[in-house]
Amino acid sequence: MMPMARTPTRASKPSRSGCPIATTLEHVGDRWTLILIRDMLMGKGRYGAFLESPEGIPTNILADRLRRMETVGLISKHPYQHRPPRYEYRLTPMGRGLIPALQDICRWANAHFPGTWIPPQAFMDLDP
Amino acid sequence: MMPMARTPTRASKPSRSGCPIATTLEHVGDRWTLILIRDMLMGKGRYGAFLESPEGIPTNILADRLRRMETVGLISKHPYQHRPPRYEYRLTPMGRGLIPALQDICRWANAHFPGTWIPPQAFMDLDP
Repeated sequence: MMPMARTPTRASKPSRSGCPIATTLEHVGDRWTLILIRDMLMGKGRYGAFLESPEGIPTNILADRLRRMETVGLISKHPYQHRPPRYEYRLTPMGRGLIPALQDICRWANAHFPGTWIPPQAFMDLDP
Repeated sequence: MMPMARTPTRASKPSRSGCPIATTLEHVGDRWTLILIRDMLMGKGRYGAFLESPEGIPTNILADRLRRMETVGLISKHPYQHRPPRYEYRLTPMGRGLIPALQDICRWANAHFPGTWIPPQAFMDLDP
């Protein structure tokens, strides 16, 4: 049986306030969006590649998140095969704009949670 | 890989992986923790003050989040009144360590979501 889809459609809800932090949480503050952005920054773009990441995103959640991320404007979808249709997902400039925040988050977690992975230098050197 | 069941006690769960981004999401990735950190950075420290913020945190969630944030090490609790006991909450150095990420998030949201509030310069000038 399919696992139950997580119901709150946070990305489509209006923000709780005009606060930029609250607004960001509405759009990318779920459990998976930043993980998928990390994967795309590390060169992943296809469905199967996202499914292989160690956090184990369920397929239905992956499909939902990619759809929402495209709606928000974080990613764009490009066909790489026509029969059957298959798409590759790439970060837009808006999506890449989260790079500095993600690098800060990595530095913070590495400083406070011993044992967290040290990101590859290529990731820490990325520009938006 | 098995999908993990989502339970409400995110902060106490082991991380989904050693990824610093995934680990950060486990600890501060809920809807409220970063909002409360924002409030504390802007000088708020008491229960009633957090309740007045425009996002309207419910009292039971506020109590739960403050407890979890103290457990994670993001905040510390200081009595300011004894009968009845009342506490003030302050960010620890670990909590203040999120300042650069929050400033980046504000810049990103201001750039991509027209109408989001521009943070006070005092906030953008904060050091960890």
